[in-house]
Amino acid sequence: MATITSDITDHGLASKGLDRIEWAFREMPVLQQILTRFEKEKPLKDLRMACCLHVTTETANLMRVLKAGGAHVAVCASNPLSTQDDVCASLVEDFGILVFARHGADRDQYYRHINGALDIAPHLTMDDGADTVTVVHTERKNLLDTIIGGTEETTTGVVRLRQMAAEGALGYPIVAVNDALTKHLFDNRYGTGQSTLDGIIRATNVLIAGKTFVCAGYGWCGKGVASRAKGLGAHVIVTEVNPVRALEATLDGFNVMTMEAAAPIADFIVTLTGDCNIIDKRHIPLLKNGCIIANSGHFDNEIDIPAIMGASSSERTVRGGIMREFSLKDGRLLYLIGDGRLVNLAAAEGHPAAVMDMSFANQAMCSEYMAREYKNLEKTVYSVPETIDAEIAAMKLKSMGIAIDVLTPEQIAYLGSWQHGT
Amino acid sequence: MATITSDITDHGLASKGLDRIEWAFREMPVLQQILTRFEKEKPLKDLRMACCLHVTTETANLMRVLKAGGAHVAVCASNPLSTQDDVCASLVEDFGILVFARHGADRDQYYRHINGALDIAPHLTMDDGADTVTVVHTERKNLLDTIIGGTEETTTGVVRLRQMAAEGALGYPIVAVNDALTKHLFDNRYGTGQSTLDGIIRATNVLIAGKTFVCAGYGWCGKGVASRAKGLGAHVIVTEVNPVRALEATLDGFNVMTMEAAAPIADFIVTLTGDCNIIDKRHIPLLKNGCIIANSGHFDNEIDIPAIMGASSSERTVRGGIMREFSLKDGRLLYLIGDGRLVNLAAAEGHPAAVMDMSFANQAMCSEYMAREYKNLEKTVYSVPETIDAEIAAMKLKSMGIAIDVLTPEQIAYLGSWQHGT
Amino acid sequence: MATITSDITDHGLASKGLDRIEWAFREMPVLQQILTRFEKEKPLKDLRMACCLHVTTETANLMRVLKAGGAHVAVCASNPLSTQDDVCASLVEDFGILVFARHGADRDQYYRHINGALDIAPHLTMDDGADTVTVVHTERKNLLDTIIGGTEETTTGVVRLRQMAAEGALGYPIVAVNDALTKHLFDNRYGTGQSTLDGIIRATNVLIAGKTFVCAGYGWCGKGVASRAKGLGAHVIVTEVNPVRALEATLDGFNVMTMEAAAPIADFIVTLTGDCNIIDKRHIPLLKNGCIIANSGHFDNEIDIPAIMGASSSERTVRGGIMREFSLKDGRLLYLIGDGRLVNLAAAEGHPAAVMDMSFANQAMCSEYMAREYKNLEKTVYSVPETIDAEIAAMKLKSMGIAIDVLTPEQIAYLGSWQHGT
Amino acid sequence: MATITSDITDHGLASKGLDRIEWAFREMPVLQQILTRFEKEKPLKDLRMACCLHVTTETANLMRVLKAGGAHVAVCASNPLSTQDDVCASLVEDFGILVFARHGADRDQYYRHINGALDIAPHLTMDDGADTVTVVHTERKNLLDTIIGGTEETTTGVVRLRQMAAEGALGYPIVAVNDALTKHLFDNRYGTGQSTLDGIIRATNVLIAGKTFVCAGYGWCGKGVASRAKGLGAHVIVTEVNPVRALEATLDGFNVMTMEAAAPIADFIVTLTGDCNIIDKRHIPLLKNGCIIANSGHFDNEIDIPAIMGASSSERTVRGGIMREFSLKDGRLLYLIGDGRLVNLAAAEGHPAAVMDMSFANQAMCSEYMAREYKNLEKTVYSVPETIDAEIAAMKLKSMGIAIDVLTPEQIAYLGSWQHGT
Repeated sequence: MATITSDITDHGLASKGLDRIEWAFREMPVLQQILTRFEKEKPLKDLRMACCLHVTTETANLMRVLKAGGAHVAVCASNPLSTQDDVCASLVEDFGILVFARHGADRDQYYRHINGALDIAPHLTMDDGADTVTVVHTERKNLLDTIIGGTEETTTGVVRLRQMAAEGALGYPIVAVNDALTKHLFDNRYGTGQSTLDGIIRATNVLIAGKTFVCAGYGWCGKGVASRAKGLGAHVIVTEVNPVRALEATLDGFNVMTMEAAAPIADFIVTLTGDCNIIDKRHIPLLKNGCIIANSGHFDNEIDIPAIMGASSSERTVRGGIMREFSLKDGRLLYLIGDGRLVNLAAAEGHPAAVMDMSFANQAMCSEYMAREYKNLEKTVYSVPETIDAEIAAMKLKSMGIAIDVLTPEQIAYLGSWQHGT
Repeated sequence: MATITSDITDHGLASKGLDRIEWAFREMPVLQQILTRFEKEKPLKDLRMACCLHVTTETANLMRVLKAGGAHVAVCASNPLSTQDDVCASLVEDFGILVFARHGADRDQYYRHINGALDIAPHLTMDDGADTVTVVHTERKNLLDTIIGGTEETTTGVVRLRQMAAEGALGYPIVAVNDALTKHLFDNRYGTGQSTLDGIIRATNVLIAGKTFVCAGYGWCGKGVASRAKGLGAHVIVTEVNPVRALEATLDGFNVMTMEAAAPIADFIVTLTGDCNIIDKRHIPLLKNGCIIANSGHFDNEIDIPAIMGASSSERTVRGGIMREFSLKDGRLLYLIGDGRLVNLAAAEGHPAAVMDMSFANQAMCSEYMAREYKNLEKTVYSVPETIDAEIAAMKLKSMGIAIDVLTPEQIAYLGSWQHGT
Repeated sequence: MATITSDITDHGLASKGLDRIEWAFREMPVLQQILTRFEKEKPLKDLRMACCLHVTTETANLMRVLKAGGAHVAVCASNPLSTQDDVCASLVEDFGILVFARHGADRDQYYRHINGALDIAPHLTMDDGADTVTVVHTERKNLLDTIIGGTEETTTGVVRLRQMAAEGALGYPIVAVNDALTKHLFDNRYGTGQSTLDGIIRATNVLIAGKTFVCAGYGWCGKGVASRAKGLGAHVIVTEVNPVRALEATLDGFNVMTMEAAAPIADFIVTLTGDCNIIDKRHIPLLKNGCIIANSGHFDNEIDIPAIMGASSSERTVRGGIMREFSLKDGRLLYLIGDGRLVNLAAAEGHPAAVMDMSFANQAMCSEYMAREYKNLEKTVYSVPETIDAEIAAMKLKSMGIAIDVLTPEQIAYLGSWQHGT
Repeated sequence: MATITSDITDHGLASKGLDRIEWAFREMPVLQQILTRFEKEKPLKDLRMACCLHVTTETANLMRVLKAGGAHVAVCASNPLSTQDDVCASLVEDFGILVFARHGADRDQYYRHINGALDIAPHLTMDDGADTVTVVHTERKNLLDTIIGGTEETTTGVVRLRQMAAEGALGYPIVAVNDALTKHLFDNRYGTGQSTLDGIIRATNVLIAGKTFVCAGYGWCGKGVASRAKGLGAHVIVTEVNPVRALEATLDGFNVMTMEAAAPIADFIVTLTGDCNIIDKRHIPLLKNGCIIANSGHFDNEIDIPAIMGASSSERTVRGGIMREFSLKDGRLLYLIGDGRLVNLAAAEGHPAAVMDMSFANQAMCSEYMAREYKNLEKTVYSVPETIDAEIAAMKLKSMGIAIDVLTPEQIAYLGSWQHGT
């Protein structure tokens, strides 16, 4: 392992990166508490970890915590557009962590970087979209010998991993961090909610109030984005394929309709479904002139960009490159932010540190759990243990100075009995 | 069975009851669709059912549907304060259903009524708070011979039943209707939300805007009430014992604190926890002068009324009887709505028909399911089958004229595979 | 004057009325403070006042205050549907005030009652809709000899009075209480907002969440109703004739369209425009089957009821009489609440006491102002003096235990100078 | 005039500037309509105009319109921090307009630039904060000979100008553009609302949900910021000196308290009062550790920065320079965004084009009005004529595809009469 070296854009950006990493740490009080404990207890001592995550300031703080726990860490990017080169530099220079990530890496580099991280022959993998798991199970099966377990951050990744487990194809146990309440209730909702709007506003500087804003998907991410768009004064429309979620959106006060009905009146469309082709050739002929489109789902295939290109006579970048303007053959203009990649990472700074604090506290504590319990686990996908969830929530509340009620013995007894009457 | 006769307050109220039952049916399009099908298919043919529910207009429509499905139905009240005497009369006179319920019945009558309904020797029980189940398992165990299954409406009841099942004490299978998304996401949130505020406003006619409104509990019911109180302009405080829920309330924009901290500033306190003594002797010395207290949880023991009485020098009713004014020994006044029973039933008309439509569609379809599947079920508590949930949501959307997207074959395939990359 | 006697429905209702009047007074801390001062200072000593207002518990408390200030008071109803007979009884029996009002009075009685109040030969008039002013200026011009001034509560009345003043037809000075910020910002918005929804819910018990709710008019009342309907989960549509208000509604997140476009999708329509025929023969053919219509504007001519009757083959009352169901000739059903009269008074209890507190504090203090200043005033319409507005707001804040910042001398100086630079 | 030359930072930035100016123009449909008309009618033919505004893309589009109307335009910056150097370059290179503005100019440069613009010997001045008016009235009184009138954009400037007019010190008529409903209802509320939060989020990337956010001032700007902070999930506290506004904030659901009470719990404080020293030496000892402070009022003296510096042992910049971190002598840290200058301009891109569209449509149409009517006007401050307001709102609605109702002749007649009864 001594011969493995990082691959990053510019080592000279370290001090800028460190400044921003420290700023984020200020908003990560749960991770601060775990860092202190890990430094003392070293629960990850001598374990090698390959982590494929968005390389942001928040991720950098998670890497610090893992290292403080005794791990040898290699990190690569789960999305080349979200990589922050100054953070990469600081991780290498200030924290001594192996990094394989460059902002804007192409597809080849992307997979070279994943393989670079895997070259440490990890005991644990940590994913945001299941890409190291996929590479391990397709191209580098020999690594399965040393891997004892892993964790996965996203809904999208968990769907893939559950599918693998169902097919008997999963080679080691995974904890689905996304299943933690302290992850998906907060990260997906408040994090994606604020940062998606932030990305759209930074990319466009357009007033949201009074505009028609279409939210495709009403899962936790969609709920967050719909709520924040409404909070900024938009007229929010939700599209869904699930009738229960569609009904929930309706009763939450949103208009629900098909994408075909929404397309002609949409000023903005954001996709957050986890599925492909949410906006495709069926919708392109219907879209309102000037419509601004973005994706906030994990993969960049929720919008069928080739179909848009096929309908266009020309295109150019506007607003300094983050937005593509397509001139359709019939004269309408369409705008696409960040090439359909995660808009909060492509056009803003990803989730705020305060939500990543809890998500990454789950990552840290689930890695510790895996290191301790892997011998007792099957090769399948596990939920986060409830005690971890409750402990993280309690640490967060404490950091905010919030005290809550405690059940009295009498109340505990009451909840446990069934013989009392009306 | 021919000798069993109804026990109600006034048969002469039937036409008023019928008018209101028909009005509610207008808002119950899912139940309308099920009624039509049940009339044709008779899935409950020759089954005897003992139903212990709030006897409201919505319940009356469920009883119609069960009867249309072929059942012999006896209904008793799950709460004497919520019984609507005109509805009882119409059920007997217009629909030929056995009814054992009188508004304001005392404890003895209450249990006599439950036993009256059980006298039909039911095949199925239907509960809202598990009271017939409890009576069957304590006083009338011989009825277990004929009972094939049951359903339960509330969170509170499900907690009791799960406890019974865990102890091996449950004598027949139960479907926990409350677990259906189309029940608890809608009934507990939008139904309890609107109707709790409705009850408080009818009881007090007090302006909500600008007032400090404490919501004890942030489960689905609490979320609904907090959201509606905020929507009416209140300053909402949430109290909780669960750290994850407490954190969620905080990030939803509510102030979270202990009840001891909230008591001195509360203009209103509503309890919705499913536990006892949420306001008790610890809090009474702290409450703000003039504080208005209500309960929207299932049982009337969330507020420790004897403790309030013990601290009072006198009491009287105000606003025509629905509110008790306690003069505390230190001079402060406290107001209690509806004797601490469910405020939306005691002071308003319970959940609006539009939400009960889905809850009771679950009751009807789960009864049908139990009639068909009981031989394959264990003596434990089951969740509502997912297909019932989806079918009810789809019927509701259709009745609202809302069309939603449908997955394309390509999208279905995508969701089912894990080998695609970024 | 000794021979004038009250005309009310039932003197025996006094104790019920007193109970409710006292309950309302609890929510009227500003009026409480004024009462204390008036008892001492007697600023209305020996003045005769004819007051034409909604005879509710809040009005009763204003009458107490005027009497405490030394006035001889006669009160009649500004709307027969809003008259509360128990309040009338208590005013006569417990407070010794002349009352001319019966709930449900017909048109003849209505005008007899106005004339009854005017029989005291008032020095001051107090109106809610300018009806005593109109009668004085048309049928009883001789009363102009003794009248020194008056006050008017509503937007609608002020429009009429300004029109009279512009035509030189106004016989004495009027203070437009509605112009006070502490009146129209609060009463019209928060009061009408909550109580309109309250009236609709009491009349229908229908779930608001998920419904399409049309608010005709986006003045202060319309803003309040739109906000509260949204707060209860409705999809709110606003109709307007004023482009600035229409734009404001759009940017506040509401859908704005013409009534013709809104009618086919409306579950509810509420009119609050101050103009006539907002729903008329143009819209009736377009209305959605089952649409529920109500008015929350001052007069009952915002909905063209004769046009609805003309399109109907039959009608009946439902839900105990407060709602009329019209069966249109084409088979659709329409529902009208409270015969198109103010829905918050017809189906609920009018504005909550907490907002009437400020409106009526303005009435009391403007009557005092008129008594003191009438000699210096022209025969025209005056706004409420700013100092009265500020004093009322400060009294209200104090009663809520809210302290606010005070300008420092330095800050006052800064605001008064223009020579400082950037 | 031929010898006057622009003073800008870098002419080479023109194409970047043009790209952004065109993007903004896309969101300015009212200005587009006015441009078309001005090109034809030339209402400003041969007039020289000195405009002191934030030099942003939106301002650039206003300058185009004025030039299209026939004016000779010189523009200088009303705030050096808001100047966008690429816009300056494009104005000079692409539109042939004189520009005196450099981002980050110091105080000397700032006043040199104002004087540069005034060197054209204007007929009309256009201000955002009354700085050219102030310079004209103090240092360059001879210019009063040629000036026929002016316009002013901000509340702050209007306060100064009204003070000057009251003292008889104003040398020519001014239209207070800020008084237009289509200006202050939209720009101050929706524009400041969104862009203030945008600036704070860009500067900090901090999660707003769950944080305590103090809004100092509840004028139109404060209302906008409070509403948007709430819409993003913050716990919003309002401080005020005006009791009516304080009461309004309370009933809008915000907590109102003094700054001294708010300081110890504030995660964010934003000042928008138009007064000085809103946060000063009284509050610094009380502020919560880590508090983030920003100003969104016109001038940078709402926060007493020298007082903060006096209490600090050291300071440094963080997050790339837009934020100063003060280490107080007692160990607490404070953060100040953009040196206390307008946060939406210092840390974001100012108001979105869609709101500036209406504000600048008022500027364009009021300049036209002044050019036509100046002979009939006194040397005082005028409100925007109502017809201009209505015309702008109607143009905006039309551009959004929104149709509104039109009064029928019957309705117009009804509004104009006062003799109809109840």
